[in-house]
Amino acid sequence: MSDVPALARGCAILGTGGGGDVRTGSLAAVSAIREYGEVPLVRLGDLADDALVLPLSGIGAPTVSHEMIHSADEPKRIAEEVERIFGRPPSAIMSSEIGGSNGVAPVAWAAQLGLPLLDADGMGRAFPEVQMVSMYVAGLPADLVIMTDVAGNVVTIRPVDGLWSERLARAVCVAAGSSALMADYVLTAAQTRGAVIEGTVTRAIEVGRATEGAADPLRALQERLGAARLITGKLTDVERRTTGGFVRGTATIEGTGEDRGRTLSVELQNENLVAVEDGRVRAMVPDLITVVDTETAAAVQTEALRYGQRVTVLAWPCDPLWRTPKGLETAGPKAFGYELDYVPVEELTAHG
Amino acid sequence: MSDVPALARGCAILGTGGGGDVRTGSLAAVSAIREYGEVPLVRLGDLADDALVLPLSGIGAPTVSHEMIHSADEPKRIAEEVERIFGRPPSAIMSSEIGGSNGVAPVAWAAQLGLPLLDADGMGRAFPEVQMVSMYVAGLPADLVIMTDVAGNVVTIRPVDGLWSERLARAVCVAAGSSALMADYVLTAAQTRGAVIEGTVTRAIEVGRATEGAADPLRALQERLGAARLITGKLTDVERRTTGGFVRGTATIEGTGEDRGRTLSVELQNENLVAVEDGRVRAMVPDLITVVDTETAAAVQTEALRYGQRVTVLAWPCDPLWRTPKGLETAGPKAFGYELDYVPVEELTAHG
Repeated sequence: MSDVPALARGCAILGTGGGGDVRTGSLAAVSAIREYGEVPLVRLGDLADDALVLPLSGIGAPTVSHEMIHSADEPKRIAEEVERIFGRPPSAIMSSEIGGSNGVAPVAWAAQLGLPLLDADGMGRAFPEVQMVSMYVAGLPADLVIMTDVAGNVVTIRPVDGLWSERLARAVCVAAGSSALMADYVLTAAQTRGAVIEGTVTRAIEVGRATEGAADPLRALQERLGAARLITGKLTDVERRTTGGFVRGTATIEGTGEDRGRTLSVELQNENLVAVEDGRVRAMVPDLITVVDTETAAAVQTEALRYGQRVTVLAWPCDPLWRTPKGLETAGPKAFGYELDYVPVEELTAHG
Repeated sequence: MSDVPALARGCAILGTGGGGDVRTGSLAAVSAIREYGEVPLVRLGDLADDALVLPLSGIGAPTVSHEMIHSADEPKRIAEEVERIFGRPPSAIMSSEIGGSNGVAPVAWAAQLGLPLLDADGMGRAFPEVQMVSMYVAGLPADLVIMTDVAGNVVTIRPVDGLWSERLARAVCVAAGSSALMADYVLTAAQTRGAVIEGTVTRAIEVGRATEGAADPLRALQERLGAARLITGKLTDVERRTTGGFVRGTATIEGTGEDRGRTLSVELQNENLVAVEDGRVRAMVPDLITVVDTETAAAVQTEALRYGQRVTVLAWPCDPLWRTPKGLETAGPKAFGYELDYVPVEELTAHG
C-alpha cells in the first residue's frame, strides 16, 4: 500500500464530490506508514472464516472531520471495544466507503493498529448515510456500531435496523462535535463474502494511476472508468450550505467549446446525486457523477467547487449491488428525496 | 414492597416537583407486582461484594416519558447487555433517583426482572442531569451508561467523564424520541458502599405514610421531613416551557392568611431549584424545595402546577454528600447557572 497518492486521487474520483477531503486522509496515511510501517493489502480469500473484519470510517460533516484522522488513539479504542465484545481482536481493517477521505484514511488506521487492509469496501463509492452500505443491502443485520471521538468517549449502538443505526449514530456524532470514528458492522470474513464490494482499493489505485503520464488525462480517466462525459465547461454557480451534519447544494456548469449553449446542474448532498440538463436527468444516484478538472482530470470535491473553474462532469455505472431492488431502496434517488424512477446511466447517456 | 401508594406519595415529595409523574411509575409498579410477584427490598449488607447493582432510571422530558414504563422488554434488554459486558447478570435493581416517577418505577423493573430492589438511590431526591448522582460525587468513574428505547435499540456509552456522559446520553435520548430507560453506572456491591445514599426507599415510604390519618397532614409531613415552611398561599403565576429535553419555568405564590402580603417565587428546571422572596433567597439547590397542597400535603409536581391552587412551599436539608465541595460543584446553584454561593436552608430560614 505504498502508492498512497494514487489511492487518494482514485478515492477522490470515486467519491463523487464527497467522502471528505482526500488530502486529509492522504496525509494521515503517509505519516502513519512512516511511523508504524507498511500496510499489506489482503483479499477476502486470504482470511480465515472466523477472522474479524473491522469496517472503519470517519463520520461527520466533511468540513470538520480533520483532527480525527491524526490520532492513533481512536482506532485503538475501537479495536479494544471489538476485543471486549468478541473476545478476540480484529484481523483486518476495511474501508466502509472507498470514496473520498474515508477510502484513504483506513490505510492510516490499519498502520496504527498493525493490521492489513482488506481490498474491498462497503460502497464502491461514497454515500452520506450510515445504512447506505453493501452489508445492509446484502441483508446482514445492522446490529452493531462502535463510535469514538477525540475526547475519548466510546459509544456502542445495537440498533434494531439500519435506519435507527443512522439516526442514533448521527445524534452521537453531532453531540461529539460533528466528528467521530465509526465501525459500522463488525464481521467475520465468512459473513463478509458476498456482502462487500471486492477489489475496490486496487480499483481506486488504478483509477488514480490512469492519468499518470497520459497525453490526454481526461480521456485516459474516462476510459479507465468507462464513463460518459456529460458536459465540459465552466462552473457558473455554486450554492452550498451545511445543515444537520450534511453539505447540500447545487453546482451549475455552462458548456464551452463543443458544449457551448448547454447547461448542466448537479444536485449534491455531500456527494453528487443527480445531473440535470434542460429538465432532463442525465445521470442519477446510485450511479457515480464526478466533477473533474478538465485539464488534469483530477476530481474537484464538493468543498473545492469554485466559480469559474474549467470542469468536465463524468458519469458511470455503480456496482450492480446498488441496482437491485434493496440497493435502490437504500440509496436510489427516492432515498434522497427525489421523485425519480431509477434509470441506469448507460441508458440515459446512450442518445446524449 | 407492597405499599406502592405510600412510596409514590413519598417519591413525589422527594422529587421537588420533578422526576416525572409518580402516577405513571406507580401504575407500572402495581401492575408489574400483580403480574410478576412481590419485590423484596434488600440492604447493601445483604449483597455479596461482587454482586452487581443495576441503577435504573427513565431519562427524558417528564411530559413524554409515559409509554416507556409499561414494557418488560426495556429492563430485560439492559440486563442482557449487563450480562454480555460483565459475564454475569445483575443481582439487584437500584433507583438512580428516589424523587418522582424514577423512585417508584424501579419496583416495576425489579418485578419484571425477578430481582430485589436495593434500599438506596443515587440522589436522595431528583436531579435533571445524568452526572448528578452520588456515585459521581463519590469519585467512581462515570465509565458506563447503557440505554434502551421503545423501538428496541440498545446504546452503550463509555464516557470519559460525567459531563460527557450527560451530553451523549441526552443526545441519544432525544434521537430516540425523548424517552429512554438508562443504567447509569453498573456497580459491584463493594463499589456501591459509600457511593450511594442508603435507606431512601424506606424513607420515601415513611414520608408517604406521614400524612396517613393525620389530623393536620401538613404539620405531620413537615415534622417527618424536618422542613421549614417558606410560604402558604395561592399560585398566581406559572410559567413553564419544554426546551432541550427539560421543563424550565417559574412558579409564583402569593401568601394568604398569616402570610398575606408576602410573595415567593420558585425557579425550576424539571425540579424546583431556588426559592426567592423580595430578592432574598430562602432556599436553594441541592436542598429540597417542594410545593404541596395545603390541605392534603400531597406534592404538586411541576407539570401539575395550576393557577389558583392553594399550596404551601416546604424546604429541607439535602443529604450531606451534596454539601461537600464536589457535591456542590456537581449539583449546587452554580451547576444550574445561578450565580449564588450555597447557603444551607437551615441558615436561610433560621431568621425567617
